[in-house]
Amino acid sequence: MQDYIGVYHSKKAKSMEFTAKQIAAYVGGEVVGDENAKVSTFAKIEEGMPGALSFLSNPKYAAYIYDTESSIVLVNNDFIAERPVKATLIRTANAYESLAKLMALYESVKPKKKGVSSMAFVASSATIGENVYIGPFVYIGDKVVVGDNTIIEANVSIGDGAAIGADCILYSGVTIYHGCKVGNRCILHAGCVVGADGFGFAPGADGYDKIPQIGIAVLEDDVELGANTCVDRATMGATIIKRGVKLDNMVQIAHNVVVDEHTVMSAQCGVAGSTKIGKWCMVGGQTGFNGHIQIGNGVKVGAHSAIPNNVKDGQAVFGYPAFEHTKFVRSSIVFKKLPDMYREMEMLKKEIESLKQQLAHFGKE
Amino acid sequence: MQDYIGVYHSKKAKSMEFTAKQIAAYVGGEVVGDENAKVSTFAKIEEGMPGALSFLSNPKYAAYIYDTESSIVLVNNDFIAERPVKATLIRTANAYESLAKLMALYESVKPKKKGVSSMAFVASSATIGENVYIGPFVYIGDKVVVGDNTIIEANVSIGDGAAIGADCILYSGVTIYHGCKVGNRCILHAGCVVGADGFGFAPGADGYDKIPQIGIAVLEDDVELGANTCVDRATMGATIIKRGVKLDNMVQIAHNVVVDEHTVMSAQCGVAGSTKIGKWCMVGGQTGFNGHIQIGNGVKVGAHSAIPNNVKDGQAVFGYPAFEHTKFVRSSIVFKKLPDMYREMEMLKKEIESLKQQLAHFGKE
Amino acid sequence: MQDYIGVYHSKKAKSMEFTAKQIAAYVGGEVVGDENAKVSTFAKIEEGMPGALSFLSNPKYAAYIYDTESSIVLVNNDFIAERPVKATLIRTANAYESLAKLMALYESVKPKKKGVSSMAFVASSATIGENVYIGPFVYIGDKVVVGDNTIIEANVSIGDGAAIGADCILYSGVTIYHGCKVGNRCILHAGCVVGADGFGFAPGADGYDKIPQIGIAVLEDDVELGANTCVDRATMGATIIKRGVKLDNMVQIAHNVVVDEHTVMSAQCGVAGSTKIGKWCMVGGQTGFNGHIQIGNGVKVGAHSAIPNNVKDGQAVFGYPAFEHTKFVRSSIVFKKLPDMYREMEMLKKEIESLKQQLAHFGKE
Repeated sequence: MQDYIGVYHSKKAKSMEFTAKQIAAYVGGEVVGDENAKVSTFAKIEEGMPGALSFLSNPKYAAYIYDTESSIVLVNNDFIAERPVKATLIRTANAYESLAKLMALYESVKPKKKGVSSMAFVASSATIGENVYIGPFVYIGDKVVVGDNTIIEANVSIGDGAAIGADCILYSGVTIYHGCKVGNRCILHAGCVVGADGFGFAPGADGYDKIPQIGIAVLEDDVELGANTCVDRATMGATIIKRGVKLDNMVQIAHNVVVDEHTVMSAQCGVAGSTKIGKWCMVGGQTGFNGHIQIGNGVKVGAHSAIPNNVKDGQAVFGYPAFEHTKFVRSSIVFKKLPDMYREMEMLKKEIESLKQQLAHFGKE
Repeated sequence: MQDYIGVYHSKKAKSMEFTAKQIAAYVGGEVVGDENAKVSTFAKIEEGMPGALSFLSNPKYAAYIYDTESSIVLVNNDFIAERPVKATLIRTANAYESLAKLMALYESVKPKKKGVSSMAFVASSATIGENVYIGPFVYIGDKVVVGDNTIIEANVSIGDGAAIGADCILYSGVTIYHGCKVGNRCILHAGCVVGADGFGFAPGADGYDKIPQIGIAVLEDDVELGANTCVDRATMGATIIKRGVKLDNMVQIAHNVVVDEHTVMSAQCGVAGSTKIGKWCMVGGQTGFNGHIQIGNGVKVGAHSAIPNNVKDGQAVFGYPAFEHTKFVRSSIVFKKLPDMYREMEMLKKEIESLKQQLAHFGKE
Repeated sequence: MQDYIGVYHSKKAKSMEFTAKQIAAYVGGEVVGDENAKVSTFAKIEEGMPGALSFLSNPKYAAYIYDTESSIVLVNNDFIAERPVKATLIRTANAYESLAKLMALYESVKPKKKGVSSMAFVASSATIGENVYIGPFVYIGDKVVVGDNTIIEANVSIGDGAAIGADCILYSGVTIYHGCKVGNRCILHAGCVVGADGFGFAPGADGYDKIPQIGIAVLEDDVELGANTCVDRATMGATIIKRGVKLDNMVQIAHNVVVDEHTVMSAQCGVAGSTKIGKWCMVGGQTGFNGHIQIGNGVKVGAHSAIPNNVKDGQAVFGYPAFEHTKFVRSSIVFKKLPDMYREMEMLKKEIESLKQQLAHFGKE
């Protein structure tokens, strides 16, 4: 890998060029076609162009591979061409993962910003690591700790006593409330909010009394939060987003929720208070979880579902309210036929009535 | 039109006053009643007051027209009064459109802010057009281009290499990521985020590897984004919001989506990755679109729907999962009767059993 | 109460310590156990620790009371222990309300920030009350009014002519648009947006014409808005969030909506234009309300519902589209059995056909 980084650093981005052979070596793949084919950028297979590297992972896009203009295409080992392919192929165990590796390399050589802007506010009691970038109009409160190499873009606010790990990126407009913790290598997209008050009120005769939310919110290492996503602080204790969790844009995590390692949630999901979600779950967008429930490990949830109760390890659920995925799909198919079923039922009732009368008639004869 | 603008400019907002005759001339309508009736402000028909102009477009509000205190009411040509109306009426082909025209005129004469705040950060390599306003605490990165007459409110962040067209308004707290493009006459409401990373990860044994998102997000001309709406950048290539598209608050547009011209989406809709949405579609709030699907032109979607598959031009769909609108409504009506149907089915089963036994009995006789 | 505040002020937060007897006196409760048991912090009952005060309100957590490590537990008067409890109990009429009271006291003694940052922008025509805190990078426009004791955190923007009451907290990144009003004792969490344009467009041949939104948005006293929540300004008149309303994160309130006193909405709800919602309603998360409808007082809505029509006072509704809560639950149970019902219906049809034929046969005999 060192070789490649060396090459990247020695040239300008626009002139970086690699052969199929070099790429295959880097990702551990096999070249099918011209091993001297060269690429200097990436393109989607359906928008391919000469000099670009594309990939094929979703079979929905397989038809594009035959005519793509891209010079090189990464494919899975099990890809079988049905007719000749113009591009040079690189076969790997996992084309998507190989692509990720190459793109990460491509990104890693971009120049990084460093230094603290004179237009930022950094409390004198804050501790700022090495090689940190703090942009203009960033607010860093009392006793905040920021780890090495972390990038904090313009207009971010970090409340008193909060701690941000090393190698993080906080994009513009992020707010971290007082006392909250962000691990290492976390990425927080623009506008996301960590540690706002949980939604807790006690009803009284004259209105609701606020339950102060004296806990915190914690993001462990390698967490990514999408734009405008919110993780509320706990009433007491901590709301915890564990290692490797990835939340898309506008996801809502309520107070005292725990999302366990490597779970991913698509945009606009919401998790109500005190619910615990297991490891390696995959949750479709716009899904809601009831409060005070337990979701097992490896659970898959279809988009736009609402989960009322506990879900066991490894289950796939879907629907409103959600139940087994395949059963929901089957019920949904019948749902479309409900008006017909209703009419048929009315007809059957009449026919049975008629049969009864005929039988009664027989009985009398 | 020139006349009117002249008049507006020559007086203070509070003293602007127009007669029914002047307004009818401006919108191409016909006065019914006192052509010298005067107005200086706007009011909803149900909150009418003397000196105000109201309008009637939604028939739900027709009852208010007879007693409204407003001096003038814009109505459609086909409006038929069932009893006497106190206010002066102006009949036009489209009362709502005429109102829009009048209100736009009213807004257009407000004084506009100009100049670059000394409390903003503007990179020396940025290119700023004429008559631009850049408020305090705005961050404008390297090589950013901002077109003429554009207004950038406080606390906006525009990343390196981004381009904003002419005559735009970016309200407070907007973030435009590096390299993204915004066309002319776009309005971006507070907190919206253009160009955050798409949600792409490749699963590995130790967690997910991030797929760098090296594409951009593009808003064409005349696009309006609501508050806290997010348009993600593409993995490769571009996420594109085409000319005239209007997205309400908290809408989520994922990577590589294309929303075609003049499509409107109400609040809290979400579109998953790589989906293409046609022209002139109307999408009800809280609707979700699956990824990698194609929605035709002129499609209408009922609120809170989830769209799993392609939808053809001109279709109206609704539901979870969505299908033809009228069919979903009919199935929903029967859905309410399901417990009754279930009970009746059980009864029918018993009755049939009884009929079978009776028949068997007859058979034996 | 004076006594307690005195004590709090005289010690540092870490060393504040109270006996069960003192707490019982403050909340009007009765000690069961050691009235000298001491606590200095709060903990959830399932995460209890010596020296902490916990509470039991949700019966789901009742099992934890017997073994909690917490020194004192607040319980409702009607709590009946099924076996011995280690902790000292304090019985009160409402354990959750008592907790709120204690936590509010705990929070109230935290030192408050004061003063206007030299890194803020405050228009010379603005009126700023006493004891106000205005953080760095706050933008306060022309003729803005800010009441006494209000705290405005970093990176907040308040547009021209807006008014903020006394004793409010505006967290980082909040935007208040021009002319909007915020009452007293309001809490606005990070990123929330008050007064963005309502979503109003008139279709024309070449695209949509914007209907200028010339009204305002008003928050009355004691309103709390969650992070990234949006309250749009009215087309004309005002969008109104009345006294004591609490909206969780990412709630969308469209133009000309009125939410009446003491209504609470969980995260990600959306209310479409001109809808009126009554007093003391409780709305589950991710629920959508159609536009131009009326929701009565004391209405309860299940999570993830969509409300198409008016709802009367006191009703509990649920579903998509929503209807009576208990009926939706019953229909949902039958929904799961739809594939079975469909199969049975097909069988019944065959059996009836067979019966008819048998009867026809009899008839011929």
